[in-house]
Amino acid sequence: MNTIEIIRKKRDNHSLTKEEIDFLISAYTKGTIPDYQFSAFLMAAFINGLNKTETAALTKAMLYSGKVVDLSSIKGVKVDKHSTGGVGDKTSLIIAPIVAAAGVYVPMISGRGLGHTGGTLDKLESIPGFRTNLTLKEYKNVLKKTGVVLIGQTKEIAPADKLIYSLRDVTATVESIPLITGSIMSKKLAEGIDALVLDVKTGNGAFMKEMKDAEQLAYSLSDTAKAFGKKCIAFITDMNQPLGNYIGNWLEVYESIEVLKDGKKNDLTELSLILAGAMIYLGKKANSLEDGIEKAITTLNSGKAFDKFLEIVKAQGGDISYIKNPERYPKSKHHKKLKMLNEGYLSFVNTYEIGMAAIDLGAGRLKKEDKIDPKAGIIFHYKLGNKIRKGDVIAELFSESSEKINLAEKRILNAVKLSDKKTKSPVLIKHIIN
Amino acid sequence: MNTIEIIRKKRDNHSLTKEEIDFLISAYTKGTIPDYQFSAFLMAAFINGLNKTETAALTKAMLYSGKVVDLSSIKGVKVDKHSTGGVGDKTSLIIAPIVAAAGVYVPMISGRGLGHTGGTLDKLESIPGFRTNLTLKEYKNVLKKTGVVLIGQTKEIAPADKLIYSLRDVTATVESIPLITGSIMSKKLAEGIDALVLDVKTGNGAFMKEMKDAEQLAYSLSDTAKAFGKKCIAFITDMNQPLGNYIGNWLEVYESIEVLKDGKKNDLTELSLILAGAMIYLGKKANSLEDGIEKAITTLNSGKAFDKFLEIVKAQGGDISYIKNPERYPKSKHHKKLKMLNEGYLSFVNTYEIGMAAIDLGAGRLKKEDKIDPKAGIIFHYKLGNKIRKGDVIAELFSESSEKINLAEKRILNAVKLSDKKTKSPVLIKHIIN
Repeated sequence: MNTIEIIRKKRDNHSLTKEEIDFLISAYTKGTIPDYQFSAFLMAAFINGLNKTETAALTKAMLYSGKVVDLSSIKGVKVDKHSTGGVGDKTSLIIAPIVAAAGVYVPMISGRGLGHTGGTLDKLESIPGFRTNLTLKEYKNVLKKTGVVLIGQTKEIAPADKLIYSLRDVTATVESIPLITGSIMSKKLAEGIDALVLDVKTGNGAFMKEMKDAEQLAYSLSDTAKAFGKKCIAFITDMNQPLGNYIGNWLEVYESIEVLKDGKKNDLTELSLILAGAMIYLGKKANSLEDGIEKAITTLNSGKAFDKFLEIVKAQGGDISYIKNPERYPKSKHHKKLKMLNEGYLSFVNTYEIGMAAIDLGAGRLKKEDKIDPKAGIIFHYKLGNKIRKGDVIAELFSESSEKINLAEKRILNAVKLSDKKTKSPVLIKHIIN
Repeated sequence: MNTIEIIRKKRDNHSLTKEEIDFLISAYTKGTIPDYQFSAFLMAAFINGLNKTETAALTKAMLYSGKVVDLSSIKGVKVDKHSTGGVGDKTSLIIAPIVAAAGVYVPMISGRGLGHTGGTLDKLESIPGFRTNLTLKEYKNVLKKTGVVLIGQTKEIAPADKLIYSLRDVTATVESIPLITGSIMSKKLAEGIDALVLDVKTGNGAFMKEMKDAEQLAYSLSDTAKAFGKKCIAFITDMNQPLGNYIGNWLEVYESIEVLKDGKKNDLTELSLILAGAMIYLGKKANSLEDGIEKAITTLNSGKAFDKFLEIVKAQGGDISYIKNPERYPKSKHHKKLKMLNEGYLSFVNTYEIGMAAIDLGAGRLKKEDKIDPKAGIIFHYKLGNKIRKGDVIAELFSESSEKINLAEKRILNAVKLSDKKTKSPVLIKHIIN
């Protein structure tokens, strides 16, 4: 096949055949198509789009650039969840043990934080000793034994995605629904799952700021999952404020423990139970989504989910003494309480800026090479619609450096708006695509 | 400036500033922007386009990537002609001596053939000894002495164009009006000209098959010339059959001698005189286009143009004995006359295929590395609308290989159609943009 002819076809807004897409991806992965041709293709695909069939072909080609894990030796339905990323989103840490404790296998391959959003791997690794770099053999063994496993992408999984993502990152071709779909779904399908729950975030802290873009992405992901014979429920959920109250790696583990062990109730708990319910339903341990959510609540309240969490941490080498007694964890050198100087109802949070403030403090990366401080982060005490009085502590900041605290403080105070009039809190679940 | 931000801006169909375009071109030429980012930009520019201001900025940035020849020491108006390329188009060889003999300086930097079209340099180099690789110093000296010079692009002239063109060639971003405009005009403006005549070809043997594309390109080139303060007349001319009768490098020199010395009259002569007339007019040696054409005719008929041609060949190291006695030139090993087996009026010529047949015979290149056989080519005896009788020789083929002759024969017989009804010959000059 002729690479230039294929690029020209997409440039002129024609559909590519499965064979053409397969050729492009496999030749690029093998290194026989140079970066400069593939980036021309990416830009043409970005601007002119890829239809459903093309997106499925792209996903398949990326998927089969590597190994597809065979989990058929483990009897039972395997279900994973994927979130498009937000600020304070630690639902994976809560959902995985709930769903596994309810009897559904959860093979979960997660990513690292980049940009203003955190990543599940970084959060897990804040637990001393916790290993996320398991081999595929260890992955299967832990899943078989504990019913759940949480690891990072191995080099065998969808190597095309790693290559393509690096190129998209430097050629302004990231924010494309079909390219995002291929990237997400090739990795998820490689895990060996039977079903998938999607949490597509929308709002000022999400990658998809507009509802219509979030819907497009949700349908694209869900259509692609179904094209591969996987059951899928997609939720479009609000990301106009941090989820829960804690932002930062250990801080998010801490809040997860509060939910799992102490029954803390907030938007984080609510969303976790709904997503877990959907997974339990798709995992055939419930007769409906509602029944799934009921089972998730029961499992959480019974304490079995927390026990499962301890089991996961132990199975992956983590020190469970920190989970049992989170107060033992080392403290940041600097801690500052941000007090409000005026009063009113919390009417707006620039969630992107809150995420960036957490990075200022040391909780995330701007470049891949940046080191993370697991203790750093923010406790953000209020939710949209809450009444705040003069002198109330709106947020607490944790960092090793007082300069970083000053930087983050400015950012946070600029990121919130109060209103004299009572404001409504946003609807958490905006749309369900089943 | 941030390369990714600039690519994103063009991707999202916004206009770029002069500074942004300048940054991209100069950084790419210096090698600080990698190919894969520049190709993403090229694809975005291809699909979303560049407006007039952006195209002028692109041209300027490409122009100033190299040297702009200063011809101010040569008193008088300097005028060049550029053709977008066709089959059998040897007008440069006829025009340059006519216009120079009429007293207008002609500094002409030409290209090589690639694809189905020939290139002026290859034609000139078929003359034994003729040097097209003059230095810029020699270029000025020959121009000063003979009033005309015909060379190839030197490495000092618009180096950005060479780099960008190579990348466009392999990323399916060639056929873009603004990118073509930047490529052509940056080279032409670097020659040190005051005015430019454009011959934009349209038809089945041209790069712009459709009239509307040819018009768009003609306006874009002409607008850009004017943005740089250069006078410009653009002609849109027919390329639905070979221009003149000879195709192939020496064969085209031969036909040029027929026109210059022996007064051969055909569409080639007609177009050459019109283009030459426009150059004489822009060179201020005539009061109008019509007057310029009159002067071109007089110059041609007087024999001064042929004398000037001998002078050019001599000044650039060519052996004029071949020009005085073209029959001395070596002959191809194989020569075949193609006879028609049916009869009718010549109603259609697939000119692209005629050009490709000439390449089959050895007259052109498919890859840059291909060697050219200067003797190879085609004499195509008929024009659209001509009556052809059974047994008439429609074409003569010349090659070193009988296999190549067989290949070309098939192609040519498939490329022509006869009709029972009398057909009209096409209008040669379709549009003049002044």
